[in-house]
Amino acid sequence: MKNTFGNNICITLFGESHGEAIGCVLDGIAPGVEVDEEFIASQMEKRKGINSISTPRREADKVRILSGVFEGKTTGTPIALMIENQSQHSKDYSATKDLARPGHADFTAECKYHGFQDYRGGGHFSGRITAPIVAAGAICLKALEAKGIEIGTHIASCGGINDREFNDLNKDIILLKNREMPTLCEKAGKDMIALIEKMRGEGDSVGGVLTTAVTGVPAGVGEPWFDTVESVISHALFSVPAIKGIEFGAGFGFAAMKGSEANDPFLISDGRVHTKTNNNGGINGGITNGMPIIFSCAVKPTPSIYKKQQTVDFKKRENAEIEIKGRHDPAIIHRARVVVDSVTAIALCDLLTGRFGTDYLAK
Amino acid sequence: MKNTFGNNICITLFGESHGEAIGCVLDGIAPGVEVDEEFIASQMEKRKGINSISTPRREADKVRILSGVFEGKTTGTPIALMIENQSQHSKDYSATKDLARPGHADFTAECKYHGFQDYRGGGHFSGRITAPIVAAGAICLKALEAKGIEIGTHIASCGGINDREFNDLNKDIILLKNREMPTLCEKAGKDMIALIEKMRGEGDSVGGVLTTAVTGVPAGVGEPWFDTVESVISHALFSVPAIKGIEFGAGFGFAAMKGSEANDPFLISDGRVHTKTNNNGGINGGITNGMPIIFSCAVKPTPSIYKKQQTVDFKKRENAEIEIKGRHDPAIIHRARVVVDSVTAIALCDLLTGRFGTDYLAK
Amino acid sequence: MKNTFGNNICITLFGESHGEAIGCVLDGIAPGVEVDEEFIASQMEKRKGINSISTPRREADKVRILSGVFEGKTTGTPIALMIENQSQHSKDYSATKDLARPGHADFTAECKYHGFQDYRGGGHFSGRITAPIVAAGAICLKALEAKGIEIGTHIASCGGINDREFNDLNKDIILLKNREMPTLCEKAGKDMIALIEKMRGEGDSVGGVLTTAVTGVPAGVGEPWFDTVESVISHALFSVPAIKGIEFGAGFGFAAMKGSEANDPFLISDGRVHTKTNNNGGINGGITNGMPIIFSCAVKPTPSIYKKQQTVDFKKRENAEIEIKGRHDPAIIHRARVVVDSVTAIALCDLLTGRFGTDYLAK
Amino acid sequence: MKNTFGNNICITLFGESHGEAIGCVLDGIAPGVEVDEEFIASQMEKRKGINSISTPRREADKVRILSGVFEGKTTGTPIALMIENQSQHSKDYSATKDLARPGHADFTAECKYHGFQDYRGGGHFSGRITAPIVAAGAICLKALEAKGIEIGTHIASCGGINDREFNDLNKDIILLKNREMPTLCEKAGKDMIALIEKMRGEGDSVGGVLTTAVTGVPAGVGEPWFDTVESVISHALFSVPAIKGIEFGAGFGFAAMKGSEANDPFLISDGRVHTKTNNNGGINGGITNGMPIIFSCAVKPTPSIYKKQQTVDFKKRENAEIEIKGRHDPAIIHRARVVVDSVTAIALCDLLTGRFGTDYLAK
Repeated sequence: MKNTFGNNICITLFGESHGEAIGCVLDGIAPGVEVDEEFIASQMEKRKGINSISTPRREADKVRILSGVFEGKTTGTPIALMIENQSQHSKDYSATKDLARPGHADFTAECKYHGFQDYRGGGHFSGRITAPIVAAGAICLKALEAKGIEIGTHIASCGGINDREFNDLNKDIILLKNREMPTLCEKAGKDMIALIEKMRGEGDSVGGVLTTAVTGVPAGVGEPWFDTVESVISHALFSVPAIKGIEFGAGFGFAAMKGSEANDPFLISDGRVHTKTNNNGGINGGITNGMPIIFSCAVKPTPSIYKKQQTVDFKKRENAEIEIKGRHDPAIIHRARVVVDSVTAIALCDLLTGRFGTDYLAK
Repeated sequence: MKNTFGNNICITLFGESHGEAIGCVLDGIAPGVEVDEEFIASQMEKRKGINSISTPRREADKVRILSGVFEGKTTGTPIALMIENQSQHSKDYSATKDLARPGHADFTAECKYHGFQDYRGGGHFSGRITAPIVAAGAICLKALEAKGIEIGTHIASCGGINDREFNDLNKDIILLKNREMPTLCEKAGKDMIALIEKMRGEGDSVGGVLTTAVTGVPAGVGEPWFDTVESVISHALFSVPAIKGIEFGAGFGFAAMKGSEANDPFLISDGRVHTKTNNNGGINGGITNGMPIIFSCAVKPTPSIYKKQQTVDFKKRENAEIEIKGRHDPAIIHRARVVVDSVTAIALCDLLTGRFGTDYLAK
Repeated sequence: MKNTFGNNICITLFGESHGEAIGCVLDGIAPGVEVDEEFIASQMEKRKGINSISTPRREADKVRILSGVFEGKTTGTPIALMIENQSQHSKDYSATKDLARPGHADFTAECKYHGFQDYRGGGHFSGRITAPIVAAGAICLKALEAKGIEIGTHIASCGGINDREFNDLNKDIILLKNREMPTLCEKAGKDMIALIEKMRGEGDSVGGVLTTAVTGVPAGVGEPWFDTVESVISHALFSVPAIKGIEFGAGFGFAAMKGSEANDPFLISDGRVHTKTNNNGGINGGITNGMPIIFSCAVKPTPSIYKKQQTVDFKKRENAEIEIKGRHDPAIIHRARVVVDSVTAIALCDLLTGRFGTDYLAK
Repeated sequence: MKNTFGNNICITLFGESHGEAIGCVLDGIAPGVEVDEEFIASQMEKRKGINSISTPRREADKVRILSGVFEGKTTGTPIALMIENQSQHSKDYSATKDLARPGHADFTAECKYHGFQDYRGGGHFSGRITAPIVAAGAICLKALEAKGIEIGTHIASCGGINDREFNDLNKDIILLKNREMPTLCEKAGKDMIALIEKMRGEGDSVGGVLTTAVTGVPAGVGEPWFDTVESVISHALFSVPAIKGIEFGAGFGFAAMKGSEANDPFLISDGRVHTKTNNNGGINGGITNGMPIIFSCAVKPTPSIYKKQQTVDFKKRENAEIEIKGRHDPAIIHRARVVVDSVTAIALCDLLTGRFGTDYLAK
């Protein structure tokens, strides 16, 4: 399936960083879902990040809806979204086109595409290709919101600086919607910005951890064995090149826990089944239990740094050095959160539509 | 797709813990691959774990090959594998069938299957369903071996005890093949066994972290955006109910690294492109770079513990207490490694067959 | 996907004619659907055909349900069905194993499986592999019946003898359920039997056309562009090796019609939208319109005939002659109808479950 | 999957007749395949049909390649193709938007999309949506040509007028490439044109049968049971709304044949295995046998006719009459042939890429 994800809701991605346009087709969304173009634009804006700590390549990223929306609502047929590329500095890349930028996909693309890949700006493997995911995700996020399902992601840690943990989820998610720097603790956010600015000064970069909470997903969703909630969400999230780890609930923390600490005892309150703790992150046996879905992603430091690096010229097959030019981010963690929200929304719309039928999102 | 995984090599799982039989259909394996029934049996044996620290439910787990193998070799048509259930103590479960065992899928299965699920021993959500995965994985492991691809998994940590890290991968993988307790450092393994025995004594359980290395996968494998190597492997692994986290290469460790530390500089030696470090775990942009694939899984403590736990009766919708009877494992980490190896082998066979065609594994 | 069909309801087939067992896994059926083992057995019996005009290989074909059914109802998890092979005369085939039987898959299997295929009795390409489809189909047929959806297939023509057309569908479908020889006109059925017996005498065989009607499918089902009702049904039916043509509604008859004759005018009666004619076979634009779904399949003459035939020895790469031994059918058209009913039922369960959610069949 | 077809080569369609743009994403084509924009344009031109017998809606249908092509060759990443809509007469449709045009998808779309569908000009169900299929198909046709695989389709019959049958396939396919009216016999073509013009005069329409030949496909391609060559091709072709029947080789003609006539005897000539006849249309048991693949499609008469027709107003739920305005085709059979060629090319690229790996088309 390659560039298509999903069984019941599908997203198909296309585009290269310096090609004519990037975009996607989002298929399977129920007919009658409201499409809020202002919200799409605001999500695109969030994805661009904060000026002082993001790439100076700042395009309009105007999302053009080519199909699937009529009179402000989804028609139920494929929604094609296109963003024209505008601010390409393609020349930045030609001199170094045979030099594999460390941490990037240049060398692996060469191995897979035999020299025919569009090397400019990382081509199809550029982080820029997350823009259409954000546009499609915005439609899904609004559809989920209308069903009472909310998603919020904060930077749990960045370069050694930790945010506070989720506390009152409903409030915290609203808070994150309005934060440019997505931390729960404002002080932590400022410290992270300062750190990232410092990295920019050094021509270096940092990574971090994003933690996501999803509230309102009904119990009984997920298709084990092979389409567990964890499987579907991780499949989608590991498409994002910078994401190198995912854990649900206590995740790697389980390694040092006893069963008696790790199990989440069930209890009834307000006539509903809850768990006392949520170490399982809202998922038992791959199926939602009605508790918030909680997971964290490890985001690696942006591989584009300005420092001189050792590498190879893969055409000449010899060792070389590279100094990356162009416009880059000293961190993408604050931009990635909107990508994670979007990917999660798409994956959940897929699971929910499969579970409850093609009209579910509009019912 | 639910109980089917894979695009080019597919595995379809079936069975319940206390039903007639469990098994799977493995489809898409090239014709002409040797099937080593002794190796299958030895992998089944490894999956049963070490006597002193594993469930006393110890069945023969004789794998019956129903189809797809002729004169000792795969035919290229579906391979159906069946294991008859023999040692069910179904009565152990009837008394508590409406009590949700904490950490298990009982409650979520009730939500999804509305009371029609086979509740005995966790039914379709029992860890026992990993047995056919191991049988199918054994065929895939041997097929990969013949192509020079080796997989090895060790317990990196368990209840606070750490194994040593991978060192000389080729030697370490051979070493692990012969270890009943899969640690690289024998002392660490013994300490873990002692800890697990202690947990059994307390009626409690522990989790851990498994780290896996795969050598010999050629560069250029993986189908980004959505079928990256990380996506495909994590999708498959998160089907295993106990796995709650996955990280590739440095994984969550990236959060505290700078780009200049995290990037893996390329260099040429022996005419081949290598990376100096392998923080990316052999994968750049979702595609293999020819370095070993390295990842770790977080395994939660076995949820079946003998201590009294708080829970709910989901039929009566009221709070309750549960004391789990039956036969359980104080840890599954040492048994899970063979499951991880198997799942990884299946996922890689799928990726490789898609990349190089349906005859690849036998060429 | 190879041996797996379906998106929401999946069937995965396995087995060889002379292997240990044949069977399938049927996944995605809603929990709580009644499983009628007597009905399954009666469908298996129908598939064996009428003694005087069918192969003398007549096995018990006892269907063993390995999983997914508990206390007489589906659990919602995969249903594995197995039929042990019993009456193999494998020696019949060894002498001619390198001779491609004309009209069979021997030569193409050799090209695809490079000599590793199980050649005995056609191996995986034997019509015998339809037996598990019939078993799985029986479960689906009963599930559809409970939703008011009925399927019936008659032999529209065989060797130049024509049955009458469908008339009162509800009555005709009931009538067909009870007919050993599935014609609407008994006289036509007898004439066909006489013809087939004559063919047997001559060591020859005949084909025919099957016409199927499905009543009760709600309007609005089908997923164009690519998963139209026609696409999904034809995909499934063309899996049956003997089927070489499919037409919906007027089908090839459209070629000689004008639009004004072909269009089905809409009209309202009893508050429901109907069409006056049903040339479109209940499907407009790939979506059901609430009228009966009507289609016909062309079934080729059984390729196993006793006459001497010209062929090649594909090992020696030289011309040869073959006289097929073994036990064969002078016609399969009367047996194929239950296969067509079954395949159709599976395909419709898939479409309906995708459209209305995973609980639909049991609601 | 809805609007996505294919396992290894995928096409995802989008657009509405009167929306902003229509298009598709073609994914999985090997890197390094030449993209001939002139050929794409010429195929788009062929799809528009012959002036005197086609709709006066004649747009430029300029195909814009948004991604996946770099320096004239495919990159191996998704190829997005977009065609802006230009010549919409949307007002033609508003007056009759609640009237179901007989033979069209208006009513079924209403049932499925609950009034949210874009009704103008048939919206997503317009024949116009075949334009991006033709664009994508043009890339696939050229890729196949480079591998020695050729596809040609002629109008076998139209309104009772028959073309001659295929004779010398290689010559006939070349001949068809250059024919505006795709008949093998020019006289038959002229007669058909005259008939279609007569239909236009009467405000009526006609259908027909298209017969397709594919040469050069190697033996051993096809993935039975469920992805037989017939299954994959028919699945794709039945997406085209006007196609209501498909037969391979002798197809429905098998019904009146004996096995001894129907079987295609094998013979060796020039060191290659051939069949003497080709009743099986190049496919045995769902797998190619190296002979030309031959199939025919039934195309129904264009449902848009100018005669007054009986129908229903599906909002008011009452009987009504409709006189269709707008610009329509009295026949599409001559335009459909390029769609059939295109769909077939895409389906074959999918099968071949799955069989021989992702680089196959460029090797």
